[in-house]
Amino acid sequence: MTIQEQALKLHRQWNGKLETIPKAPLASREDLALAYTPGVAEPCKEIFHRPEAAYEYTMKANTVAVVSDGSAVLGLGNIGPLAAMPVMEGKAALFKSFGGVNAVPICLDTQDTEEIIETVVRLAPSFGGINLEDISAPRCFEIERRLNERLNIPVFHDDQHGTAIVVLAGVINALKLTGKSSASAKVVINGAGSAGIAIANLLLSYGFSDVTMCDIHGILGSEPADLNWMQQEMLPRLNPRKLQGDLSQALIQADIFIGVSAPHIVSGEMVASMAKDSILFAMANPVPEILPEDAKAAGARIVGTGRSDFPNQVNNVLVFPGIFKGALEARATHITERMKIAAALAIAALVPEARLSEDYILPEAFDPQVSEAVSRAVKEHLS
Amino acid sequence: MTIQEQALKLHRQWNGKLETIPKAPLASREDLALAYTPGVAEPCKEIFHRPEAAYEYTMKANTVAVVSDGSAVLGLGNIGPLAAMPVMEGKAALFKSFGGVNAVPICLDTQDTEEIIETVVRLAPSFGGINLEDISAPRCFEIERRLNERLNIPVFHDDQHGTAIVVLAGVINALKLTGKSSASAKVVINGAGSAGIAIANLLLSYGFSDVTMCDIHGILGSEPADLNWMQQEMLPRLNPRKLQGDLSQALIQADIFIGVSAPHIVSGEMVASMAKDSILFAMANPVPEILPEDAKAAGARIVGTGRSDFPNQVNNVLVFPGIFKGALEARATHITERMKIAAALAIAALVPEARLSEDYILPEAFDPQVSEAVSRAVKEHLS
Repeated sequence: MTIQEQALKLHRQWNGKLETIPKAPLASREDLALAYTPGVAEPCKEIFHRPEAAYEYTMKANTVAVVSDGSAVLGLGNIGPLAAMPVMEGKAALFKSFGGVNAVPICLDTQDTEEIIETVVRLAPSFGGINLEDISAPRCFEIERRLNERLNIPVFHDDQHGTAIVVLAGVINALKLTGKSSASAKVVINGAGSAGIAIANLLLSYGFSDVTMCDIHGILGSEPADLNWMQQEMLPRLNPRKLQGDLSQALIQADIFIGVSAPHIVSGEMVASMAKDSILFAMANPVPEILPEDAKAAGARIVGTGRSDFPNQVNNVLVFPGIFKGALEARATHITERMKIAAALAIAALVPEARLSEDYILPEAFDPQVSEAVSRAVKEHLS
Repeated sequence: MTIQEQALKLHRQWNGKLETIPKAPLASREDLALAYTPGVAEPCKEIFHRPEAAYEYTMKANTVAVVSDGSAVLGLGNIGPLAAMPVMEGKAALFKSFGGVNAVPICLDTQDTEEIIETVVRLAPSFGGINLEDISAPRCFEIERRLNERLNIPVFHDDQHGTAIVVLAGVINALKLTGKSSASAKVVINGAGSAGIAIANLLLSYGFSDVTMCDIHGILGSEPADLNWMQQEMLPRLNPRKLQGDLSQALIQADIFIGVSAPHIVSGEMVASMAKDSILFAMANPVPEILPEDAKAAGARIVGTGRSDFPNQVNNVLVFPGIFKGALEARATHITERMKIAAALAIAALVPEARLSEDYILPEAFDPQVSEAVSRAVKEHLS
C-alpha cells in the first residue's frame, strides 16, 4: 500500500482523527446532578458575577480553536473549508498529543476578511486562544492583527509565527556552530508570503540587521512589482545594501538562505557563491529548494529542510503546542515578540552544546521536553 | 458539603468537563506522516473533489456543535455566553456519554438574530449537526427555522423539540394506562415560550385536536395581550372550544396538564376540577407547578416532573443523544416531524406493557437502550 492509500485508510477507519470526551464522571444520577442540572447552575452564576472564573470552571482554560478558511492549505492551495478539515483535525490532535492542549477544528464557510474577523470574535467566549491556520496572504496579516486588537485571548497564525520561531531556533544553533553573528550575518529569504514575512520580522526583532527578501520577481523592492501592503510595510527594514536583481544576485556572499518557496529554485552554483560556512533552510514541501546532498556538495555547511527523512527537520510542531500551553497556563492575552524569541531560544537550548553538530541543530519533534521548555519560556517572558 | 459546593469543586477540579482526544495514533514519525503531512493531503484532495467524502474522512461525520448565546440559560435567564459555558459543556459531555456523539460547546458573543444565523452558517463545515440551546423565545424560532432553510445538516433546538418529544413519549404511555385517546383528550399547556409552543405543535402533529395554551395573562388568545409572531401563528390551531379566562378555567374537565412555567401555579382545587384519571406533567424546575403528592391527593392519576427524585422524570437526555446519533448515521439533512414522533414512540415502547404503571411511564435516563432505540427510530423514518 502506498502512503497515500494508507493515509486514506487511516482517516476512513477512524472517521476523522479527533473526538470529544467527558472529563467528569457521568455514570450515576448523582454525577449528573453535579455536572449538569441542578449543580451546573453554580459555576454559571460564579462566571456571571466574575468572568475570569471561566478559567477555573470551564474548558476555556485549556482549549484553542484551530481556525481556517481553507484558502491556503498545505501545498494544495485554495481547497475551501470542508476539504481543509483533515489538516485542522490533525493540527488539533497534535495540540493535545504534544502540548496537552484541547483543540477544536473550525473551518469557516467564508473567505471574506471582515466576515472571518467577526465570526472569530463571536466564537471567542468558548476558547482560551485562537490558532489561525492556512489562511492566504495578505489577508492573514490583517485578520491576525485585528483579532489581536479586538480579543483578550491570544491569536497566533501558526504558518507565520510557528515557522518563524522554529527557523530562528535553528538559526541560533547554526550561528553557534559556524561562529557567525546575528549582527553581521547576511540573510536571504526566498518567498514573501506569510511565512517569509514573519521570519524576516522575527529575525529583525532578534537582532539581525541584514535581511533581504526575494520573491518570484526577484529581490523585493528592486523590481517594479505589485507588493501587498504588508510587503510595502516591510521594505524599509530590508535589503540595507540596496542589492538589485534576482535570487542569484542576492545569494552572492550571503551567510544564510531561508527558503519558503518552491522546489529546485536554488542551484549548486548559487550555493557556491555564498559566504564560507553557509547555512541553508530549504523548506519547500515536499521537495526542497535544493536537496541537502547537492547543497553540501556545493559547499554548504548546514542544511535544514521541512522533511523528516533528512537531518535538521524544521517543524512547527516544536512550537505551537508549547506556545499555547504556556500562554494558556499564564492566561497571556497576546503572544508577543519577546515570547516568540524566548521560545526560539528555549528550543535551541534543548540541543546540548556537546551534541550540537551540522546534522543536529534542532531537537526531535517527538522529544517530550520540547513543549515543556517552550511553555516555560513563554510563561517567563510575559508582556 | 452542599450540592452547590460539590458542583463548584467538580468543575474546578477538572477545569471544565470536556476534552479533545486524538483517535489516530501519533506516537511515531510514521504515524505523523499518515495523520498529518504529507499523508493528510490525500483525504483533503478526496473531499475537494467529492464533498460528501467529508463524512468518511473527518469528524464532521459524528460531531455536533452545541450553540448558545446565553440568553435563556436554565432558570438563570440571560447570563450571557461565557457564563453559559458550563451548561453547554455539560450538554456536550452528555452527547458523548449517552449517544456516542462528539459535541463541541460554542457560546456566541452576540444575541442578534441575524448575527447568530450568519455565524452558525459559517461554522457549519466542521459539524454534522447543530444543537441550539438556551436561546430565548421568540428569537429561537426564527433562528432555527432559517438555519434549517440555509444548511444541509440538521438543526435542532433541544429546549423546544427535545422537551416536546419526551413529553409526547410520556403522554403516549399515560394514554395507554388511562384508556384516553389523543383524538378526544383535552390538553392544557401552561407556558407559551419555546418549550410550550413546541409541545403544542408536536401534540397536534401526533393527532391531538384539543390543545389549549395559557400564559401569565391567561388562555392564549382569550385576553388582549402582546403575542409574539410564533404565538400568533399557533393561535388558529389552539383552543377549539373557545375557552375564556385563566388557567383555572382552562383546566376544568381537562384530561392532561403540561406545565413549562413556574413553581406552585397549580392548586389542588384546579386538579380536582380536571376530568377523571387526569395526567399532569409539572416540569417547572427545580420546583414543579404542583408537587406530585399534592396532585395525587387532589385526584390526579399520573404525575411527571423534571426532577430525578420523583417518579416519571421528564428528561431531554432521553432524546437528544439518540436523535443526533440517528440523524448523523443516516446523514439526514433535517429532523422532521415524522422523526420526532417516531422517537417519542420508540421511547414510550421501551417501557414494556407489563411494567407500565402510574409511577413508571418513561424509561430511566441511564438506560443504555434509549439512545439506540431513538436513533434506530430516526433512521427508519427518514424524510
